[in-house]
Amino acid sequence: MNLNRKIRVGISHGDINGIGYEVIMKALEDATITELCTPIVYGSAKALAYYRKALEMPSVDFSLIQRAADAKDGVNNLVEVMGGEEVKIDLGTPTEASGKAALAALERAADDLRNGFIDVLVTAPINKDCIQSDEFHFPGHTEFLEQRVGEGNKALMILFNTSLRVALVTTHLPIAKLPEAITKKTIVDKLTIFDESLRKDFNIIKPRIAVLSLNPHAGENGMLGNEEKDIIAPAIEEAYDNKILAFGPYAADGFFGSGQHVHFDGVLAMYHDQGLAPFKTIAMDEGVNFTAGLPYVRTSPDHGTGYDIAGQNKACEASMRTAIYSAIDIFRSRTDYYEMRANPLRRQYVDKSGDKEVLDLTKDDNDDTEILNA
Amino acid sequence: MNLNRKIRVGISHGDINGIGYEVIMKALEDATITELCTPIVYGSAKALAYYRKALEMPSVDFSLIQRAADAKDGVNNLVEVMGGEEVKIDLGTPTEASGKAALAALERAADDLRNGFIDVLVTAPINKDCIQSDEFHFPGHTEFLEQRVGEGNKALMILFNTSLRVALVTTHLPIAKLPEAITKKTIVDKLTIFDESLRKDFNIIKPRIAVLSLNPHAGENGMLGNEEKDIIAPAIEEAYDNKILAFGPYAADGFFGSGQHVHFDGVLAMYHDQGLAPFKTIAMDEGVNFTAGLPYVRTSPDHGTGYDIAGQNKACEASMRTAIYSAIDIFRSRTDYYEMRANPLRRQYVDKSGDKEVLDLTKDDNDDTEILNA
Repeated sequence: MNLNRKIRVGISHGDINGIGYEVIMKALEDATITELCTPIVYGSAKALAYYRKALEMPSVDFSLIQRAADAKDGVNNLVEVMGGEEVKIDLGTPTEASGKAALAALERAADDLRNGFIDVLVTAPINKDCIQSDEFHFPGHTEFLEQRVGEGNKALMILFNTSLRVALVTTHLPIAKLPEAITKKTIVDKLTIFDESLRKDFNIIKPRIAVLSLNPHAGENGMLGNEEKDIIAPAIEEAYDNKILAFGPYAADGFFGSGQHVHFDGVLAMYHDQGLAPFKTIAMDEGVNFTAGLPYVRTSPDHGTGYDIAGQNKACEASMRTAIYSAIDIFRSRTDYYEMRANPLRRQYVDKSGDKEVLDLTKDDNDDTEILNA
Repeated sequence: MNLNRKIRVGISHGDINGIGYEVIMKALEDATITELCTPIVYGSAKALAYYRKALEMPSVDFSLIQRAADAKDGVNNLVEVMGGEEVKIDLGTPTEASGKAALAALERAADDLRNGFIDVLVTAPINKDCIQSDEFHFPGHTEFLEQRVGEGNKALMILFNTSLRVALVTTHLPIAKLPEAITKKTIVDKLTIFDESLRKDFNIIKPRIAVLSLNPHAGENGMLGNEEKDIIAPAIEEAYDNKILAFGPYAADGFFGSGQHVHFDGVLAMYHDQGLAPFKTIAMDEGVNFTAGLPYVRTSPDHGTGYDIAGQNKACEASMRTAIYSAIDIFRSRTDYYEMRANPLRRQYVDKSGDKEVLDLTKDDNDDTEILNA
C-alpha cells in the first residue's frame, strides 16, 4: 500500500433497475467520505444522470474517468463501464440490459482489484437471475470473486455488525442439496478461514467460534438426524485440535434468542437462512456482508436489489455506508496484521538448568504449543 | 363449559431434572392466578417437596389430590401421578426415571383433557430423548397429543407472542427429510388449519398469512431450487382460491429483519429453525408454543428443559406464565367463537326486481362468495 495516497474504494453499481445508485449516491453525498478515502464507482454516466434526476439529488458530483488509475483524491470518481452508451432503465424489473450492465461493472472492478488500482471492493446488490451469462454462471458475488480474484483460496461469507459475526458453511444452495454439502472437511475448512479472518480482519487475538447444528434441537441425540454426532462434532474436535477455539454444535433456534451469541466472537451457521434470518433480525439496517478468505477485501450491504422501492427515494443507505467504512477498517486491520508480523524478533531461550544462565539463539522459533493456554 | 366454575388449567410437570418445577412454582407463586383459574399440576409430591426446599420456596402451597375431579377452586392443586413414591432427582441429567415421570404426568393430563376434567393443558418441557418408550415414540408433545387427543385432526405448531404468530409446516424433522415432506397438500392443509386457528383462537376476522420459501432467496427464480415454483406458489394459489388470504413465498432471511411480519397476522415457515430462530430472537422470554388444530387447547413455554441451570433458581418463569394466560385466552376465544355461531339468524333475501319488494326466506343460506370483498 502506498501510504502517500488515500485508500481507494471501488464500488460496483450492481443492478441498475434496483436501489444501487440510490444507496451509493446517498452514502457518497456526505463530503467527509472523500477525506477518509477515494471512492471509485464502476458504473454508467447515463444511469447516474437518470438517478440524479429521478431522485432529485443534483448535488452529488462525480468526476468522470475512463480508468481507475486516473481517479482523483478528494472527489467521487465514476469509471464508465458502458462506453458512455445509453442504458435502458426499467425500474424494479430484472432485464437483460440490467444484467449486462451489472456484469460489466463487476468484471471491470474485479480486474482493477486484482491489479491494485483499487484497494477494496464494495458491491451494490445484483439480481442473481438476470446477470447469468457465458461469463457469469455463479449463484452470487461470493462465488464469482472466489474464482476471479481468489488465487486458489476458498471464500467464506461473513455477515457482521458491531456485535455479531455470522459465517456460513454453505451459501446459495437449495435445501435439497444441503445434507451432501455438510462434510467434516468443509466445516473444518470454514472454521480455519473464519478463525484466521477474525484474527486478521477483525483484530481479535483468540477468537471463540460457536458452531450451529444442522438439524432441529441439535439432532436430539440422533433422534432428529445424525449429522451432529457423525460430522459436526468431530469437525469441531478436529478444529479444536488445530488450536481453533470452536464450540458446539448448538441448537440454532434458541441460540440467538437466549443471547448466547454475545459470548462468542463468531457464529458458524450451516446454511443461508439459518444464519441470515436471525442475523438480519438482530442487525436490521446496519448489517454488512464480507467475503473472507480471499487475498482482497470485498464487502457489500446485506440487502437485495430492492426492486419494490426502486427509484422512489425510500432506500436506506446505512448498510452501504457501513459496508464502505467496514471495507476500509478491514483493509487497515489486515495491513497492520501483516506489517506487525513481517519482521519478528526471534525468541530468546535462556537455559537456567545449569550452574549459570545461558542464552541460546539456535533453538527453533516455532514452538507455540502453549498458545491455547497462553 | 360449566360457567359456574373457574377454568381448569392442567399443567404437566415435564422433566423432573430440568427447570419444570421451578417455572411452575414461580408462575403459581402469585396468588392472583387462582382468582383467574384453577391450576391443576400433574406431578409428584416428592419432587415438588424437593424443589420447594432446594429453591427455598416454602410459601407456594399445593392441595394434594388423587384425581382432577377433586380439584378445589382458589388454591393450587397437585394430582399425584407417581403413586406417592420416591422419585430420584438428578439435576441437569436426562435419566430413565425422569423420562418415566414425565410420561406419567403427560398421559394422565391428556386423558383428563379428553375427559373434560381439565379445560386446557399447559406442558412443562420434556427431554425428547429419555421419554421415549413403548408408550411414547414421538419427536415431541405436538405429535403425541395429535394422536392421543386429536380425534383425527392434524396438529399445527404455532409459536406466538403479542405481535407475531409463526406456524410450522414441518416440526421435528431432520433436514435431510425436509424436501420430501414439503408437498402442496401439506402446505394447503397447514394453511387451512392456521387460518381457522387465527379466526377461532386469536379472534382475527380475516387473517392474512405470509408463507416463507424453502430455499435461499425464495429459490431465485429456480436457480436455487424449484420447490417455490413447483410446490409452494401453487399451494398458496389453491389456498387463496379457498378464501384463505395467503401470500408469498417470501425469502426467509430478510423477512423478519425488514419488519415485513408486522403486515401479517401469521407467518407460515417451512421448517423448525427457519421459523423458530427468528421468532425466538424477536420474542425472547415471552414466547408461547400453541398446538393448533386439535379439539383441545394446549400451550407450553417456548424454552427447553434448561438442564444447564436446573435447580439453581435462575430460570425465568415469564414464558410459563404467558403460556398459562394464553391457554385461558384461547379457550375463551374458542368458546365465544362457537357460541356466537351456534344459532345464527338466517339471511333475508329481498327481491327488488319486480313491481314490489318480496322477502324470500327459501333461498340457500350458504352464498358467501363475496367474503373476500366483504
